[in-house]
Amino acid sequence: MKATVERATLLKCLAHIQSVVERRNTIPILSNVLIEARAEGLRLMATDLDLQVVETIPAAIDINGATTVSAHTLFDIVRKLSEGSQVELAVANDKMTVVANRSRFSLATLKRDDFPVIAETELPTSFALKASQLRELIDSTRFAISTEETRYYLNGIYLHAIEGAVPKLRAVATDGHRLARIELDLPEGAADMPGVIIPRKCVAEVRKLLDEYGDDSLIDISLSTSKIRFRFSAEATLTSKLIDGTFPDYSRVIPTGNDRILKIDTRSLSEGVDRVAAIATTEKTRAVKLALGRDKVTLSVTSPENGTAAEEVPAEYSSPEFEVGFNYRYLLDILGQVGSDQVDVHLADAAAPTLIRESDDSAALYVLMPMRV
Amino acid sequence: MKATVERATLLKCLAHIQSVVERRNTIPILSNVLIEARAEGLRLMATDLDLQVVETIPAAIDINGATTVSAHTLFDIVRKLSEGSQVELAVANDKMTVVANRSRFSLATLKRDDFPVIAETELPTSFALKASQLRELIDSTRFAISTEETRYYLNGIYLHAIEGAVPKLRAVATDGHRLARIELDLPEGAADMPGVIIPRKCVAEVRKLLDEYGDDSLIDISLSTSKIRFRFSAEATLTSKLIDGTFPDYSRVIPTGNDRILKIDTRSLSEGVDRVAAIATTEKTRAVKLALGRDKVTLSVTSPENGTAAEEVPAEYSSPEFEVGFNYRYLLDILGQVGSDQVDVHLADAAAPTLIRESDDSAALYVLMPMRV
Repeated sequence: MKATVERATLLKCLAHIQSVVERRNTIPILSNVLIEARAEGLRLMATDLDLQVVETIPAAIDINGATTVSAHTLFDIVRKLSEGSQVELAVANDKMTVVANRSRFSLATLKRDDFPVIAETELPTSFALKASQLRELIDSTRFAISTEETRYYLNGIYLHAIEGAVPKLRAVATDGHRLARIELDLPEGAADMPGVIIPRKCVAEVRKLLDEYGDDSLIDISLSTSKIRFRFSAEATLTSKLIDGTFPDYSRVIPTGNDRILKIDTRSLSEGVDRVAAIATTEKTRAVKLALGRDKVTLSVTSPENGTAAEEVPAEYSSPEFEVGFNYRYLLDILGQVGSDQVDVHLADAAAPTLIRESDDSAALYVLMPMRV
Repeated sequence: MKATVERATLLKCLAHIQSVVERRNTIPILSNVLIEARAEGLRLMATDLDLQVVETIPAAIDINGATTVSAHTLFDIVRKLSEGSQVELAVANDKMTVVANRSRFSLATLKRDDFPVIAETELPTSFALKASQLRELIDSTRFAISTEETRYYLNGIYLHAIEGAVPKLRAVATDGHRLARIELDLPEGAADMPGVIIPRKCVAEVRKLLDEYGDDSLIDISLSTSKIRFRFSAEATLTSKLIDGTFPDYSRVIPTGNDRILKIDTRSLSEGVDRVAAIATTEKTRAVKLALGRDKVTLSVTSPENGTAAEEVPAEYSSPEFEVGFNYRYLLDILGQVGSDQVDVHLADAAAPTLIRESDDSAALYVLMPMRV
């Protein structure tokens, strides 16, 4: 193998690649990136056995071939090479040499044939989303993904099709305390898709790659019941195993009859909650109390160590007065996703799931369980 | 106590104050800031028993008085108040209230009388340095301060006066592997000063405060054998205990007869070392080897796991060829302080202390012990 590539091109690609590679691996080859020099350029691949990313970058190829070297080390080296360098990669005697300007590195390799590859199987469903749509799907839901490993079926985003007059593609995440749901018009080709749970790490890597694509770029998504593949362009592909589990019937959790409606300025509520939470310095004091009164909400937090904090926020509210408590971090997470100036909070009582959304016809909705205060 | 103060003024002051307050304290009142409302404004004080910072800020005082509240909590609250707010602080019933716009906080207090204060004793030596001079003294030496607690007398910067035709004020720090020394003309009033060891935390806090003062601002320094006080202006004063120990006779460590002189571009050397060090991913492989040859240096690192790296850097060198190894981090620390385009490295052999300085008449010099390679 022998190839020459621009430092900037290689660096950008390795930035994606090394992000998939875990810092600690019990299987040594999982620390490595597979590098293949072939006619169409340099092909780089990394995997953690569940998730695999493949990118092809333009390069001048002198000799075809392939090898694997430490992904983090190679990334570190390329990062430190001078801007504008041409980088020559070559393999000889079980070593890969990296040469740029006056620097020369000789890196330990592991056999290309030992590199694990996620088997290519048929992915019968195939559709495309705009980068902007996929970003919105992820951003509106990922914060609610559960981190409890015992509830592995909640450790991802549930993506599925909904039939109806206007069929929808829906993404849902929940950790039992809060739920986030967003839907958009079902793209062509997705009608028969199975419901799939996309694991957290895959979501994170897809989201990182999306930063580099314009709103209107099309991302091709193919999936089966066990795998999903995101093709960002001819050059970059991410394939992931799906979570093998059953996502709970979340629709029961979404309240439909909450008739105490609070309409409030999103930013005033969010900043107010953040301020009163300043005295909540321990795990125990995560609850912010909302006392709903005629056209106002009084936010308050009580901390046994620090004291109390309160702030009154004007609002539209004309239902009976009552008090309800929420985990302030969960409330802030949700408000952080609300893009509109005003937010609607649909309440029932101090113990019932509360619905939060921009408006009745917004694409996203959020459900938050109260805390006793 | 009752006072009103601008949020921005209070925030800036609390940023300094809370920096002194440790996150965990076995003595509860050490988590607090002492706030005193008196004729000249609000006076805030924090301490960790070794170091104390006092700042006075303009405020409208309604009722004189004093209390103490959690420094980190108050800082967090004030940080989250809207820009431009007026903040009212008042004490009633063992609580301090903080009111701004529609927010109201009631904070737990501890008695003002229990707040420990570093006793005011006589500080017979007194002199002034420009902010730019004090910054240079600190920056040139602090990286070499030892972190080994058993060698407590090396856990600071040794500041002392040197007699001679042109008397000097000298700062020295060493951890046994490297030494940094800088000197400047002895300021008026410092002739009879005792040699003092300024603890690392005091150095760090002084350095932070210096960022807010222009190069020509004068900092008044007063000291005795046990304490040092930095007065940044009428408003801010930092007092610290000194390390009670004897700084070793460092002059023996500074080589004077190293006659193999390497003159090299500072940035080329620094970037080259950083690059070849990219493969040094474990503690064991911190050594960078410098192979000195006729008008060039070849930098190299060998890592049992990763492989080898080498880079040739042009230089002026005409003494006998030989090889010497250094801890690359220590070498980078020193090169990071060298301000000139070219640096002089005075070598003797592969085992002897090596002298590094901008030029023969530069204010700072650095000594680095080699590593076996």
